[in-house]
Amino acid sequence: MTYQPGTTGIVVQNIERADPAVIDGLAKCGVATVHEAQGRKGLLNSYMRPIYPGARIAGSATTILAPPMDNWMIHVAIEQLKEGDVLLLGTISPSDAGYFGDLLATSAMARGCRGLIIDAGVRDVADLKEMGFPVWSKAIGAQGTIKETLGSVNVPVVCADELVNPGDVIVADDDGVVCVRREEAADVLKKAQAREANEAEKRAKFEAGELGLDIYGMRPRLEEKGLKYV
Amino acid sequence: MTYQPGTTGIVVQNIERADPAVIDGLAKCGVATVHEAQGRKGLLNSYMRPIYPGARIAGSATTILAPPMDNWMIHVAIEQLKEGDVLLLGTISPSDAGYFGDLLATSAMARGCRGLIIDAGVRDVADLKEMGFPVWSKAIGAQGTIKETLGSVNVPVVCADELVNPGDVIVADDDGVVCVRREEAADVLKKAQAREANEAEKRAKFEAGELGLDIYGMRPRLEEKGLKYV
Amino acid sequence: MTYQPGTTGIVVQNIERADPAVIDGLAKCGVATVHEAQGRKGLLNSYMRPIYPGARIAGSATTILAPPMDNWMIHVAIEQLKEGDVLLLGTISPSDAGYFGDLLATSAMARGCRGLIIDAGVRDVADLKEMGFPVWSKAIGAQGTIKETLGSVNVPVVCADELVNPGDVIVADDDGVVCVRREEAADVLKKAQAREANEAEKRAKFEAGELGLDIYGMRPRLEEKGLKYV
Amino acid sequence: MTYQPGTTGIVVQNIERADPAVIDGLAKCGVATVHEAQGRKGLLNSYMRPIYPGARIAGSATTILAPPMDNWMIHVAIEQLKEGDVLLLGTISPSDAGYFGDLLATSAMARGCRGLIIDAGVRDVADLKEMGFPVWSKAIGAQGTIKETLGSVNVPVVCADELVNPGDVIVADDDGVVCVRREEAADVLKKAQAREANEAEKRAKFEAGELGLDIYGMRPRLEEKGLKYV
Amino acid sequence: MTYQPGTTGIVVQNIERADPAVIDGLAKCGVATVHEAQGRKGLLNSYMRPIYPGARIAGSATTILAPPMDNWMIHVAIEQLKEGDVLLLGTISPSDAGYFGDLLATSAMARGCRGLIIDAGVRDVADLKEMGFPVWSKAIGAQGTIKETLGSVNVPVVCADELVNPGDVIVADDDGVVCVRREEAADVLKKAQAREANEAEKRAKFEAGELGLDIYGMRPRLEEKGLKYV
Amino acid sequence: MTYQPGTTGIVVQNIERADPAVIDGLAKCGVATVHEAQGRKGLLNSYMRPIYPGARIAGSATTILAPPMDNWMIHVAIEQLKEGDVLLLGTISPSDAGYFGDLLATSAMARGCRGLIIDAGVRDVADLKEMGFPVWSKAIGAQGTIKETLGSVNVPVVCADELVNPGDVIVADDDGVVCVRREEAADVLKKAQAREANEAEKRAKFEAGELGLDIYGMRPRLEEKGLKYV
Repeated sequence: MTYQPGTTGIVVQNIERADPAVIDGLAKCGVATVHEAQGRKGLLNSYMRPIYPGARIAGSATTILAPPMDNWMIHVAIEQLKEGDVLLLGTISPSDAGYFGDLLATSAMARGCRGLIIDAGVRDVADLKEMGFPVWSKAIGAQGTIKETLGSVNVPVVCADELVNPGDVIVADDDGVVCVRREEAADVLKKAQAREANEAEKRAKFEAGELGLDIYGMRPRLEEKGLKYV
Repeated sequence: MTYQPGTTGIVVQNIERADPAVIDGLAKCGVATVHEAQGRKGLLNSYMRPIYPGARIAGSATTILAPPMDNWMIHVAIEQLKEGDVLLLGTISPSDAGYFGDLLATSAMARGCRGLIIDAGVRDVADLKEMGFPVWSKAIGAQGTIKETLGSVNVPVVCADELVNPGDVIVADDDGVVCVRREEAADVLKKAQAREANEAEKRAKFEAGELGLDIYGMRPRLEEKGLKYV
Repeated sequence: MTYQPGTTGIVVQNIERADPAVIDGLAKCGVATVHEAQGRKGLLNSYMRPIYPGARIAGSATTILAPPMDNWMIHVAIEQLKEGDVLLLGTISPSDAGYFGDLLATSAMARGCRGLIIDAGVRDVADLKEMGFPVWSKAIGAQGTIKETLGSVNVPVVCADELVNPGDVIVADDDGVVCVRREEAADVLKKAQAREANEAEKRAKFEAGELGLDIYGMRPRLEEKGLKYV
Repeated sequence: MTYQPGTTGIVVQNIERADPAVIDGLAKCGVATVHEAQGRKGLLNSYMRPIYPGARIAGSATTILAPPMDNWMIHVAIEQLKEGDVLLLGTISPSDAGYFGDLLATSAMARGCRGLIIDAGVRDVADLKEMGFPVWSKAIGAQGTIKETLGSVNVPVVCADELVNPGDVIVADDDGVVCVRREEAADVLKKAQAREANEAEKRAKFEAGELGLDIYGMRPRLEEKGLKYV
Repeated sequence: MTYQPGTTGIVVQNIERADPAVIDGLAKCGVATVHEAQGRKGLLNSYMRPIYPGARIAGSATTILAPPMDNWMIHVAIEQLKEGDVLLLGTISPSDAGYFGDLLATSAMARGCRGLIIDAGVRDVADLKEMGFPVWSKAIGAQGTIKETLGSVNVPVVCADELVNPGDVIVADDDGVVCVRREEAADVLKKAQAREANEAEKRAKFEAGELGLDIYGMRPRLEEKGLKYV
Repeated sequence: MTYQPGTTGIVVQNIERADPAVIDGLAKCGVATVHEAQGRKGLLNSYMRPIYPGARIAGSATTILAPPMDNWMIHVAIEQLKEGDVLLLGTISPSDAGYFGDLLATSAMARGCRGLIIDAGVRDVADLKEMGFPVWSKAIGAQGTIKETLGSVNVPVVCADELVNPGDVIVADDDGVVCVRREEAADVLKKAQAREANEAEKRAKFEAGELGLDIYGMRPRLEEKGLKYV
């Protein structure tokens, strides 16, 4: 059964996930390549930034719908984590509060979680960096939250302008975050790897000083459009 | 059949709509009351602002998924409009360009459209005001768009942080925009009307100078929480 | 006794206010003139905007310190209002939620309140405009609040980057909001009125086509600084 | 002679202007049409908003380069105004201060000025509205400025991301602000009027219920791109 | 004697400070823990960010009220520094200019200053990082300032939405900045250390794979609220 | 011949550049010093931030005017690069899309390019950091661009609020980006070096504990302005 985004009070316990080998393959390709490979869709809003540079992950989304300033559902979600998952949190209304810190990260890591994507704030960022638990967030801030109101776990959620289904593959690196539909993941990986092979070849040509104008045969079309060299 | 948000190249021609009487009832209640009545969910991000004050509408969402800086799909969507619909547009990636102006409004009005909700920019706003075609948008700007790439019509779209399904009821006024699930609309209307009746009664008491502290019986709980009058 | 800004759980019942004639005089002068007259201090951040154009008010501040997304203290504050007061609300942490709507406005107006200055969101703005209850706010939005946590009433509060004491005079118009210390209000009024007299005289000269360069005798200093006419 | 943008200490006294009939023609066409007619260039950043709705003007730019928080050069510029000019101000570094108010507007109107485009703040906006002096600005705020440092008048200035030369034609309405190069103005007017004629015809068709899909013959290309109706 | 925030032209030479051992204890606890320990108050706005990651400091606030684009008072403040102090600057009106650079940092470090909290801009950030002088600021930028107008030193100032008194304890790390009232510092430290002890215990449990749902006994209340596992 | 900013369809092949020794001298001085030395002009908007910390470069601007979401002209520009140049891109209308990534950087580096200044988005930032190719940008994001519309190369462009001519010297470091007119570069370098010498002397005094109040002889003027020590 599928739930409407915005449904509260529900925890879906069994979700389907993509093939782990596909997920790891997507991580290697990185966000920009995956985004291109799937037809330039699925990017989260670029206000989502990593709390420290250099991390690159992919994982199956365990989704959280959270009320404003209320992080109760994160505890509920952690129980649903499987090895290789990524927590992904959207809010019912916008908030910059610090929903997540080092204790929750300790708990999530103990369950095999690879990172957090959160359309809200995060805190204890120095500890999270030291622990090697990567987070992409809208904000950094110490403001505390409460545990008062139900949201949901593993229903579809809107996170940074993208609808993410539980089990969709999340890829995140210094360029941002992209969501790949679970059922399209294997196909997207193939296309992404093809792009990578193609890029390796081009990189060699560029290093040798060849120009994109020639490699891509752009000169005739530029001339036709009327570009004038003076 | 249900399509994934983000699906491109699809026009769904027959969508279900809520009962017109329910829709008109929701318009009368307004955004704040409807938002409360359905458990405080469904609000679009508050950056969505009306291009002129004073409009209050409700209608069934004819949804548009549009590529960045490309308004081609609006033409496609207008053919799908039924009397009493509202156009609602989300983009594949964020854009402030002016997707919509007075010509498109003329065409939409001729098909019975009640207004536009657009997570992007709009132009010809002086004309739109004169025509009485209300728009809630993220931006106002004259920047033109192209007609080059396919999006979709009447698939679920994310608009200003909310997932909207085709046929969901959109209510919009000077407070913003709220989305009501089609299948919940009748129930939400009942709750909203009950709130209104209740508010009318309270308004009379407030006008007579009674205090919320007494009307709502707040004093004991404030005392218990430790509030000190000095 | 004076309380620290940020103190919670306190309602100060008796505050001193400025002379009503002084307050009304400041309203006539308007924000820009008052700001200049008191040495360019006291302006609230310019993100504070009126919900409708054309209002110009002054009043004694009944101050509210409110928790994030919690409007309980507004009810407490309304009981403390005296004829001619202005409600002014700062939050413990930033929030765009809609803390205030038409019912609270009805109650505040019944107590003689002249308007609201709120470093957060407001809703029912179409009703507020119709009622003639002016509000200057950081945001407009329907998002509801709760009644769960204590703040304070009539302690000093930070509102849009300015510290406001209970009983300080608030002047607000389409240019924004300025705070005048209660004990300086009479003196500021004198200076503001002197500026106005002076401006009236200058306005006549400008209308007659005289130039500021001559009225203010700027030419020698511009020449001395090296301005070249070419 | 042409000065570099950024040059300070210079007042250029004689600038060329476009034909008044051309300027007035551009005003009638409005910002969106002019922007399209000149190949979608020349738009100022969409953060420039009118201080009140409904104004539509065009005029020759008398340009001002102003230091941060210093409005001295506006006085210098007003002497250079000719009937039908528009004041346009860019700053050396960004500022939201209120550079311009009702006295300066009185002086500018006495010299035949049609309005102000200012990449900074403005104040006395209620008075300016009453006087009918339109302003497009980045901000509204009462914060005062000083008269201490030289800028320039009638050198090229960057205003809201666009380079404007003295004498360029500025068109402004509720959609924003667009700059037309003086030497291209007559040509742009012709193209804009052709667009308008064309739009009038289309408007009639749209009002009669014809669809853009048919008027513009879009159906074959949509089909070819693969659009599926389901 | 206490001065009003906003008072200009005053330098208070003798201020009280908290116990150095308490201050150092608070530094160890960090911003998030201290914020929680004092009842979730005192956080500066989350737009205040460190210019480089990894610093964690606490110190007594030597406060500066600065005019817009004028850093004269920083020189005055440096003379008032005592070993272990933190400079904290608020502005009379908002500014992103670069008030502070490596020379001022050299001078401040020579007086034992531990860092700067500035609700404005800072420059020479590469040098400051190399010198190990941490700064939390609203902006980074090279724009210069002047030395023309008086502000004050060691009067209460509003900095990033918080009122800070001279001698209050400032704690800052990668999560942001929090202000602790001087007279509450010892008590807050005790509560913060208690939280830390408690967290250490919980961290061990989380590492061992226990769930927050069980550690905090959340299951019954979630059930009572109606959470459904499906 | 000089082209108007905004001109499209033009590639200027031969531009004048400043003396390489002057350029390298300016790099050593850094942004803040150069900005001061040239009279506080030429700074790009402070939203331009480096994608990684620690780079400091100077070079001759090869300028690019790019359509929204279209990076075609970058390929054209790379052919025009000379050893020691910096690519600088402004857009015809604002865009946060990722115009530039590791392949283009490989190509630019092979032509001797020292870095990129881009008033738009960039991607592959982890790769760019590893390659040591510094970028100052408005945004980071993976969103792809197209190759459809002509812009220009080596015409004057507005970039982050500054007009930059081809061949102007660009200096960039962690403080931001400053533009020096080509013809003023040698003179600015002299003034910048004089400031540096002067600063070195002052740094020694500050390290020894002397106060700016004494070094700059500020005390009499502060007293005259009325500063009171209490």
